[in-house]
Amino acid sequence: MGGRVCGDPDLVIRAAATLGRAGQGDISFLMNPRYGRQLQTTKASAVIVAQAVEAPVALLVAEDPYYAFTQVMVLLYGYRKHKETGVSPQAVISDTAVLGVGCHVHPFATIADNARIGQRCIIYPCVYIGEGVTIGDDCIIYPSVTIYERCMIGQRVIINAGSVIGVDGFGYATHEGVHHRIPHVGAVVIEDDVEIGSCCGIERGTLDDTVIGQGSKLSDLVTIGHGTKVGPHCLLVAQVGIAGSTTLGHHCVVGGQAGIVGHITIGNNVTIGGRAGVINSVPDGQTVLGAPALEADEARRAYAMLPYLPQMRQEIRDLQNRLRKIAAQMEPPSDDSKEP
Amino acid sequence: MGGRVCGDPDLVIRAAATLGRAGQGDISFLMNPRYGRQLQTTKASAVIVAQAVEAPVALLVAEDPYYAFTQVMVLLYGYRKHKETGVSPQAVISDTAVLGVGCHVHPFATIADNARIGQRCIIYPCVYIGEGVTIGDDCIIYPSVTIYERCMIGQRVIINAGSVIGVDGFGYATHEGVHHRIPHVGAVVIEDDVEIGSCCGIERGTLDDTVIGQGSKLSDLVTIGHGTKVGPHCLLVAQVGIAGSTTLGHHCVVGGQAGIVGHITIGNNVTIGGRAGVINSVPDGQTVLGAPALEADEARRAYAMLPYLPQMRQEIRDLQNRLRKIAAQMEPPSDDSKEP
Amino acid sequence: MGGRVCGDPDLVIRAAATLGRAGQGDISFLMNPRYGRQLQTTKASAVIVAQAVEAPVALLVAEDPYYAFTQVMVLLYGYRKHKETGVSPQAVISDTAVLGVGCHVHPFATIADNARIGQRCIIYPCVYIGEGVTIGDDCIIYPSVTIYERCMIGQRVIINAGSVIGVDGFGYATHEGVHHRIPHVGAVVIEDDVEIGSCCGIERGTLDDTVIGQGSKLSDLVTIGHGTKVGPHCLLVAQVGIAGSTTLGHHCVVGGQAGIVGHITIGNNVTIGGRAGVINSVPDGQTVLGAPALEADEARRAYAMLPYLPQMRQEIRDLQNRLRKIAAQMEPPSDDSKEP
Repeated sequence: MGGRVCGDPDLVIRAAATLGRAGQGDISFLMNPRYGRQLQTTKASAVIVAQAVEAPVALLVAEDPYYAFTQVMVLLYGYRKHKETGVSPQAVISDTAVLGVGCHVHPFATIADNARIGQRCIIYPCVYIGEGVTIGDDCIIYPSVTIYERCMIGQRVIINAGSVIGVDGFGYATHEGVHHRIPHVGAVVIEDDVEIGSCCGIERGTLDDTVIGQGSKLSDLVTIGHGTKVGPHCLLVAQVGIAGSTTLGHHCVVGGQAGIVGHITIGNNVTIGGRAGVINSVPDGQTVLGAPALEADEARRAYAMLPYLPQMRQEIRDLQNRLRKIAAQMEPPSDDSKEP
Repeated sequence: MGGRVCGDPDLVIRAAATLGRAGQGDISFLMNPRYGRQLQTTKASAVIVAQAVEAPVALLVAEDPYYAFTQVMVLLYGYRKHKETGVSPQAVISDTAVLGVGCHVHPFATIADNARIGQRCIIYPCVYIGEGVTIGDDCIIYPSVTIYERCMIGQRVIINAGSVIGVDGFGYATHEGVHHRIPHVGAVVIEDDVEIGSCCGIERGTLDDTVIGQGSKLSDLVTIGHGTKVGPHCLLVAQVGIAGSTTLGHHCVVGGQAGIVGHITIGNNVTIGGRAGVINSVPDGQTVLGAPALEADEARRAYAMLPYLPQMRQEIRDLQNRLRKIAAQMEPPSDDSKEP
Repeated sequence: MGGRVCGDPDLVIRAAATLGRAGQGDISFLMNPRYGRQLQTTKASAVIVAQAVEAPVALLVAEDPYYAFTQVMVLLYGYRKHKETGVSPQAVISDTAVLGVGCHVHPFATIADNARIGQRCIIYPCVYIGEGVTIGDDCIIYPSVTIYERCMIGQRVIINAGSVIGVDGFGYATHEGVHHRIPHVGAVVIEDDVEIGSCCGIERGTLDDTVIGQGSKLSDLVTIGHGTKVGPHCLLVAQVGIAGSTTLGHHCVVGGQAGIVGHITIGNNVTIGGRAGVINSVPDGQTVLGAPALEADEARRAYAMLPYLPQMRQEIRDLQNRLRKIAAQMEPPSDDSKEP
């Protein structure tokens, strides 16, 4: 794990559990300082921490404790094991589709003409893979996923249940009050190591492809507009929506329920807060928050003012009144001034 | 219904309809005072109301008129009747799965190894029930629902079409710029009498289970993060998103499109307004509104100020100018003062 | 196209491409002035524009360039071609269902009792069409769509993958702490030429039907509450949520992630900004922005103030201090004043 053990190095660990629920033989972890006090009371045999502290439990001090925890989890449990079903005769696979060796295709899956699936892919029930779709090696497509024609999926891609890849973009030309659909000849390109949550909708491009960059991860109910390019290694949290023709750089993090308008450029290493509404391009490395989104420090200061608004308005009223009185005191009464 | 009839107690009611569309033989209802005027013009034979009023129509005055209306609807129409299809030979059911008596399993449904389904469940087409899933009695699983392995579903649970239960949580350890997925060994526990709308995504926990408490109802396109515990009898309106490791008490109401961050505690009987963005824990019984969410009265006052902001800024400018003039008047001109 | 050619009228166009990627033989288009500079550097053979400008490329000047572009796209590419599969013996179609001539029903589709499908419809795999559903001619229902019983779908309707039509509305009567589901006897009516994106959830009405008006288009992950009426020719962008019993007029545009509460009336030709939160009725022709939504000009002015709030608060503090000093200067010191 790249960590340092404080305590008995021969401890046997059999399972992982949260600090609150761990017992003898369990390893736990402390990432969020919010839970720091639990370190003193946990019944875990060992805890992964970022910094050595006094605690009545063995510690694994790791520079990157969350990564260490992940490695421990992989060691203890591994990833989901998939049943080796082979290619079901109850799947419908076109004669012109090509399947690599070692694929498992479940019943009720459909693989249309000229689709090309790599090696060791797992296609769960009720998946629809459209005409000419290409899928790399070692992909997992969970139940009821639909991939429209000609989309290109890389290697080791995971698409969770109910997601839809390559639906036509929301592009209509309104003419004399009627909306005319624009044919979408672009596709969706999903690069290697991308993972997509459940019930996502990723639109195909009008002319250019929509792209989800290598290693990017999308959570549940995320939607990406036509022609948008999400760079590599981005994290898009649940219910994020990105409109069309927008570009995200690499290593962007977009918080839950955030929205990004179309036709803008989000730089590299940009962080967008949950529920943010981003309507302007964002330069590299910036963090933006709020709707409308502002640079983080500015946003924190600005949005923190909201509760004070009624008071501010009252203070302005008070100032106006006091100023009126002062002005009245300073000026001699106008009538008198004319008399002598 | 527990109500009191004002008017002919022998009226025959054959159907229910809205005030605007009801006719002879119809019962209608008035809950929303917005529609109060329609009470005078409705052609309904009877109307369920909260308070007796003068009206040219028979009234059923009920303490809880919406509940009375619901009882009337159940009497008149009942709930959806499901065709008794039995267990289809076109479903794929593992030899090691156990089905209770009286189940109906439609074609193209898949029930994986060691799943255990209670009595009288209805499993619609293209449902996927993963390995080791347990489902109680009298559940209805609508088409194209996916339940990942080992999730536990209680009694009388309804899951509507396209929803996904037990997808891996959005948990990645980022190490040297690459996002490493954390194995998710927790499951999803859906307690008795829970109802889930269409296209929802409920993540399984990393270590602990994600829980939807007894009698809670989720509307459409709701997503719940890994390890979050929704208490009993909560109502989550459409498009709500709750991040991971958050706890909701009992009888919470979360308005449409609201978002709740991870790792916080929402008390019992909390009401969260539509589109609210909740970033801090909320004590029992509180109502919060807005994004960022504030206590309701504070929020109403604060957000009501937004339209006045430009005026407030102008007033501040005016005050500054007037004060400058007053200050100038008060001080004798500085040059003159030096002159003898 | 109804346009005027500036340049060689005999140019041969073989494909369409964006300004940045177009080459010899390609037509491109310029709608967004943001991309205006690319007109000088594009390698396209021709560009569709709104106004004639000096450019080193042939121009097609069209009054409605986006519509002209759409027509060009239809000419060059046409819409998606669907394989003529006929009616699969691997689909489950009730004996009492009626299919028009020329329908294609894919494997693993289910058509329940008394459903009536018009002519030339295409029903993709894993679609579920419930009891008594009616569908007009020339409809396309993409994979894993669920249509609950008795919904009525018009002509030329397109429903994209994973969407759910006619799920029960989110209607519960809470009585003694328990939520009782209200039977929903209304249905969903989807009028002619409606198109619905992926993973949408449209609830059936409690008593009245939910209606999506003729020619309206819904993008992905949109949800519509029970009994809501969306007028004709509306555009609902991705992740829009409209609560129940609300009415939208014709030609409304609702931006991405916007939310509209229940029981209000949105007029005709209303534009609602992305992420807007609409809690009051909106008159014909108005544009509203923000959450809470305000009339557009008011909203722009108000929300533009947010970054200035901390400064405004400081200015109020400064004013208060200066006023205090001025007041002190004006009043003779109170102790002294008592001294003779």
